[in-house]
Amino acid sequence: MSTKIGECPPFEGGQREAQGVLFFICVLLVFPLAAFAQNPAQRIFNQPKFQAATEFISKDHDRFVRELIQITEVEAPPFKEEKRAKAFVEMLRQSGLSDVSIDAEGNVIGVRKGTGGGPLIAIAAHLDTVFPEGTNVKVRQQGTRLSAPGIGDDSRALAVLLMLVRAMDAAKIQTASDILFIGNVGEEGPGDLRGMKYLFQRGPYKDKIKMFISLDPFGPGGDITIGGVGSKRFKVTFKGPGGHSYGSFGLVNPAYALGNAIARLSRMQVPSKPRTTFNVGVVGGGTSVNSIPFESWMDVDVRSESKEELNKAVDTFTRLMHEAADEENRTRTTSQGRIDVDVKLIGDRPFGQTPMNASMVQTAAGVIQMFGMNPTYGSASTDSNIPMSMGIPALTLESGGFGGRNHTLDEWIDVDKMSSIRGINIVMGILLALAGVQ
Amino acid sequence: MSTKIGECPPFEGGQREAQGVLFFICVLLVFPLAAFAQNPAQRIFNQPKFQAATEFISKDHDRFVRELIQITEVEAPPFKEEKRAKAFVEMLRQSGLSDVSIDAEGNVIGVRKGTGGGPLIAIAAHLDTVFPEGTNVKVRQQGTRLSAPGIGDDSRALAVLLMLVRAMDAAKIQTASDILFIGNVGEEGPGDLRGMKYLFQRGPYKDKIKMFISLDPFGPGGDITIGGVGSKRFKVTFKGPGGHSYGSFGLVNPAYALGNAIARLSRMQVPSKPRTTFNVGVVGGGTSVNSIPFESWMDVDVRSESKEELNKAVDTFTRLMHEAADEENRTRTTSQGRIDVDVKLIGDRPFGQTPMNASMVQTAAGVIQMFGMNPTYGSASTDSNIPMSMGIPALTLESGGFGGRNHTLDEWIDVDKMSSIRGINIVMGILLALAGVQ
Repeated sequence: MSTKIGECPPFEGGQREAQGVLFFICVLLVFPLAAFAQNPAQRIFNQPKFQAATEFISKDHDRFVRELIQITEVEAPPFKEEKRAKAFVEMLRQSGLSDVSIDAEGNVIGVRKGTGGGPLIAIAAHLDTVFPEGTNVKVRQQGTRLSAPGIGDDSRALAVLLMLVRAMDAAKIQTASDILFIGNVGEEGPGDLRGMKYLFQRGPYKDKIKMFISLDPFGPGGDITIGGVGSKRFKVTFKGPGGHSYGSFGLVNPAYALGNAIARLSRMQVPSKPRTTFNVGVVGGGTSVNSIPFESWMDVDVRSESKEELNKAVDTFTRLMHEAADEENRTRTTSQGRIDVDVKLIGDRPFGQTPMNASMVQTAAGVIQMFGMNPTYGSASTDSNIPMSMGIPALTLESGGFGGRNHTLDEWIDVDKMSSIRGINIVMGILLALAGVQ
Repeated sequence: MSTKIGECPPFEGGQREAQGVLFFICVLLVFPLAAFAQNPAQRIFNQPKFQAATEFISKDHDRFVRELIQITEVEAPPFKEEKRAKAFVEMLRQSGLSDVSIDAEGNVIGVRKGTGGGPLIAIAAHLDTVFPEGTNVKVRQQGTRLSAPGIGDDSRALAVLLMLVRAMDAAKIQTASDILFIGNVGEEGPGDLRGMKYLFQRGPYKDKIKMFISLDPFGPGGDITIGGVGSKRFKVTFKGPGGHSYGSFGLVNPAYALGNAIARLSRMQVPSKPRTTFNVGVVGGGTSVNSIPFESWMDVDVRSESKEELNKAVDTFTRLMHEAADEENRTRTTSQGRIDVDVKLIGDRPFGQTPMNASMVQTAAGVIQMFGMNPTYGSASTDSNIPMSMGIPALTLESGGFGGRNHTLDEWIDVDKMSSIRGINIVMGILLALAGVQ
């Protein structure tokens, strides 16, 4: 017998009001009651309270969309997440969590107490976006399609956390485990996972969290990130004497060294398996069009699924940077000073893996299957890298719905209700299956 | 008979107090009185009032240095000259000029009325520096060596204007011409000579100024800029779809197009005669290290003494920019969009020339010779380009003293008194020879 709820007909638009009910009837039809005891995923479906929570999610979806927009429109550049953190604290409280605070690193943490007897579980979405201060974060809405920088990565997940708190309260769900709801800082860019590093390595919850879920970013809900892709990030700075563009023409120019370095890097060969990537994300430097700059720089990201390939790529990249500086020193005059290059490590995300046979992975896969989807397993560089690298079971899950173009100004998601709430239900199912419902 | 005052012994440090007197005695010894009538340069030396003014300059040099520091420490980035403009208005008033105001473009203009009968002469120093907001403009002083961004280019020249006003008043000098003392905006970088364009082409003095002197930058005083080097300045922007550094690896990246464009440009061949130059001054773009940027850009300066060579260089440069975009579109996938390049003209300084045989040039050369120096003639891209391009006689002169590294954070000048006041005296001599002393 198939255990796929996907055999039920897909919900139609006109049936949305009733979809929670339809959905539960489906579950009852497909799973004989005897099966519910078989695993945590099935047991959670056996809980009328879980059903009540899914019904609440369906009814509360409009508020979810409003909050998602509200969160998105509070800008949260790397290292400047405070405004969004403050807003999110307030929203978590309004959603029913009383024990909420901002930790020393800037993470928002709210505790939902369990009855005891379960391991401490943390579920997190990141507050920060990749976008700098001043980016227009106003949400453009066309039907169910919402566009704005950061809306899917990771505002949607933050709104999901609020929804989970409300749905669990509405359904009077008591878990065995305490659950930490976290809106964390420092996932993107230069943040270098600082929120997680504090949480797992220095803060009051150090050594206490036994399982970790990161929601990041949007996506239907079938994908489980069990591998933490390692990444190293660098600021490469070429420095030179600078000078007047006309009067000092012929002096070495750090911008030319930078350009030649980028050109060399753009031709670097990396394997597609194990997936290995590199990126020039930001460039800068120089004071005016008519001055030879005294410094030109770029931020570079190198990632790989394999530690060996990452190290190889980093070695090649570093060599190319020095070659570019040397070339500039050979090409123009160094009478006023040479080009020096500084390759500074600004980010180092550790590798990590939650084993396929870990019960956390099995439980998550079981829940996903119950929602009619085939779980897929992948690797990425997310907040889960930190617990994974420490041997703490951790997964990164999709926050539901669909969308595209994250990390661009054209980032969008679709909050079409069926896909949107299914994703939320999957996350809730996994969380509750792990936390144990009384 | 030589007319070079340089045959007098150089002033020694210990003689500084007396140098004005010594200097005048020298003049009397070297030039028989009969020669004074020969040309305007000589006539000016015949004026006891000119001598009195040079004496005042010698005595007032400490104040000059204080004001020079004061001006330098008010930052004046391109398009943000207001703070320095306001300070300079106040300083011009304190120096004795009553009729001072800020025009619609932001230029400070003070009028020193003449007795009539002479052509209107303008003498200008530029308020703006090449340095952006937030640059540390605190002056470091080691003996007579002063270091700070902008101190020689063009703070020293602004302080010279103040000194000229005071010296002329102290010596009760009345000129035939009205003289406009100007602290103008927009000489550097993106300013694109906006101060001069307003002054000569739109403002109330349009068509009225008959001779123009720009003081820019420091230098002993023997150099006369009679050629206006043409320049064209561009903002080159590469735009692409952007994306996630890991998830979208393989998409075209505007930073790679930029890097390759800079690399190509860095190898562009230009003639050394007529002197032709290019520069990448500022680069920017991108939002975070882990995002493929949606835009990367640079500011480029191309200059030449020859219109034909400038056009050739600009054509080559423009072709290289498009080749770099094309290369990126061939090298990576354009499935989410292509790299487009926009080459936007952001500055266009017209060519110009004040003929060698113009009386203004002859007079300036005569004064310089009287101070024992051989005048040299050059071309540069300065505020004088505007009047020169309109056929209005214009020169750019050095503001005195010596120094180096302008347009860098290490910019410095030396205010060693002998060299410093000689430069001021040369400028005053040229100005008064042109304006006619009653």
